[in-house]
Amino acid sequence: MSEKKIGGAGLRGQSAGETKLCTVGQSGSGLTYCGYDVADLAENSTFEEVAYLLFNGDLPNQAELDAYKTEIKAMRDLPQALKEVLERIPADAHPMDVMRTGASFLGNLEPENDFSEERVAANRLLAAFPAIMTYWYRYSHEGVKIDCMTDEDSLGGHFLRLLTGKEASEQHKRVMDVSLILYAEHEFNASTFTARVCASTLSDMYSCITGAIGTLRGPLHGGANEAAMDMIQKFTSPADAKEQMAGMLARKEKIMGFGHAVYRTSDPRNVVIKAWSEKLAQENGDTSLYDISVACEEFMWDTKKLFCNADFFHASTYNYMGIPTKLFTPIFVCSRLTGWAAHVMEQRTNNRIIRPSADYTGVEPRTVGPIAER
Amino acid sequence: MSEKKIGGAGLRGQSAGETKLCTVGQSGSGLTYCGYDVADLAENSTFEEVAYLLFNGDLPNQAELDAYKTEIKAMRDLPQALKEVLERIPADAHPMDVMRTGASFLGNLEPENDFSEERVAANRLLAAFPAIMTYWYRYSHEGVKIDCMTDEDSLGGHFLRLLTGKEASEQHKRVMDVSLILYAEHEFNASTFTARVCASTLSDMYSCITGAIGTLRGPLHGGANEAAMDMIQKFTSPADAKEQMAGMLARKEKIMGFGHAVYRTSDPRNVVIKAWSEKLAQENGDTSLYDISVACEEFMWDTKKLFCNADFFHASTYNYMGIPTKLFTPIFVCSRLTGWAAHVMEQRTNNRIIRPSADYTGVEPRTVGPIAER
Repeated sequence: MSEKKIGGAGLRGQSAGETKLCTVGQSGSGLTYCGYDVADLAENSTFEEVAYLLFNGDLPNQAELDAYKTEIKAMRDLPQALKEVLERIPADAHPMDVMRTGASFLGNLEPENDFSEERVAANRLLAAFPAIMTYWYRYSHEGVKIDCMTDEDSLGGHFLRLLTGKEASEQHKRVMDVSLILYAEHEFNASTFTARVCASTLSDMYSCITGAIGTLRGPLHGGANEAAMDMIQKFTSPADAKEQMAGMLARKEKIMGFGHAVYRTSDPRNVVIKAWSEKLAQENGDTSLYDISVACEEFMWDTKKLFCNADFFHASTYNYMGIPTKLFTPIFVCSRLTGWAAHVMEQRTNNRIIRPSADYTGVEPRTVGPIAER
Repeated sequence: MSEKKIGGAGLRGQSAGETKLCTVGQSGSGLTYCGYDVADLAENSTFEEVAYLLFNGDLPNQAELDAYKTEIKAMRDLPQALKEVLERIPADAHPMDVMRTGASFLGNLEPENDFSEERVAANRLLAAFPAIMTYWYRYSHEGVKIDCMTDEDSLGGHFLRLLTGKEASEQHKRVMDVSLILYAEHEFNASTFTARVCASTLSDMYSCITGAIGTLRGPLHGGANEAAMDMIQKFTSPADAKEQMAGMLARKEKIMGFGHAVYRTSDPRNVVIKAWSEKLAQENGDTSLYDISVACEEFMWDTKKLFCNADFFHASTYNYMGIPTKLFTPIFVCSRLTGWAAHVMEQRTNNRIIRPSADYTGVEPRTVGPIAER
């Protein structure tokens, strides 16, 4: 019998540990990584700097950043055996199953032998995820075996190059960079908590990340930007959006991309990605997807006082960059890996196995009778 | 900031939810599955009956059991693509990485498309795990591509047949059956809790099980029977065991297979598996491994008042059956899959996303300065 009963289901509002990595719903705009406001990081840093920050606790100076980028750029290629595994995954597989399997398989080939290798393992996954996603995608959808190495300076640019085979514009590279910053870390969300529970048995980095990917796969966690995209694509105009959303609400259909488990009045990531969506709309010339998204935002606020979370304007943003909708959540993996891995490292520094109790609500004790009498 | 601070680290003694599946440290011998004492089940039922019990809440009658066994016997073979993935995993890989990857890859080929397929997915994994383990093991260690189908009546017999290519004795089959019963379920242990956190995002069965395998892989959770085997193999006699263990304690070395996070005076599974270890020792003729194990048990109780947990006599038991030590924890997976899957199904029936908070212990808010000034 547990000694203390936790009030809320899902451990909501309950502390399950300590972290130096992140605050949600506290100072500044409401989201900080190692003390830095996420909006500040999105404006004044790059994703590689944020990854370094999460793994080391401080932003790098120029020499440290240069060394770090050189290190992870050299880790981008995939082993031949992993390519052969990805070639065996059908085109209609769930892309998050691909990411989960890619991470898990890589752990067989390049294991984290002990915790002194934790940064190597985390950086290897960081560098390899864009290729895991795009190698499978382009092989299964286009029949192309891509070269997984590029000379792109940033991970975001590298991903866009692998996806299309062509160099992306500077603006698109920067938007991808910002997006990766915004999704990098978010305290004890379900996937990160999974990584910490796994880490608490002193399991290896690949197991922790594989488990986190599987948890992010759930529609209550990752996937909201894909669902938002599926919705806004059906709307033909801002007026049509408002009319159809009214119908969805009347039919009590779930509308994804709004509200948040922790934030109560706004999501600090929305204002950043919304501004980029607008810029991409202007660059594109056809602003209808952005205009429809703004109409959705207005409608949900006016009728339900629900605000856009980080996912909603990511849908139009990614779409303007030509990214297939089914890859939206795998991009989330490429980013959040940094937060997951940082939490694994943190859990290891002051570990106790995470093993809660449960309240028993089942049948009373009984005995096994002969099968003929059941 | 979290509204309520949990006292113990690792959520120890804290309720994280409700379950009808299991009690630990309560009535009877201290471990019940759906109201049945584990010792009663180990004496009077089979593993297939226990799997049915965990998935359905009641033991099957004869017709239900026959139908269930027919169903899962037909699911034992592996898809060709999965075999080809297993062939690409090196012989020196961690066997739990193989199990994790096998479960994850199968989810690409045979996805759980919606929750109406949850039993099919769970049964498929149950039926396929012995082949996933042994196909990889025998290909990588012996160069043999085994036939993954057998006509063995039980999953335990099927596993032993795949491992050696020969039919096992009735006694060995029954011991494997009992072992699978003992390891099947254990409330909110870390791997099961991982499966429930993953399930709480409404992710799929394969993701939940893959994450649980990764968590069980950690040396603080699975793996104690392997560590116990490594230890007792070094001892040449009962007297040598006691002398060497005294030295290990003096050097503060960790001794695996004793004590438990929840049980305080004994592990109800120990008496069952210890009796089988003794029978196998007598059958074998050379009882030294059993005698050494008994000496270890006596020494740890006399000096530290620590009792054997389920893992300790599993070491000698498995060894007497000719099972390679590195497969001990994968066998645990074959069994615990039933508990994990039952908890996933239970989580889905009354779900709220498991998303705790954390206490922030990091630096105060700061701003991103120019990189040249860092």
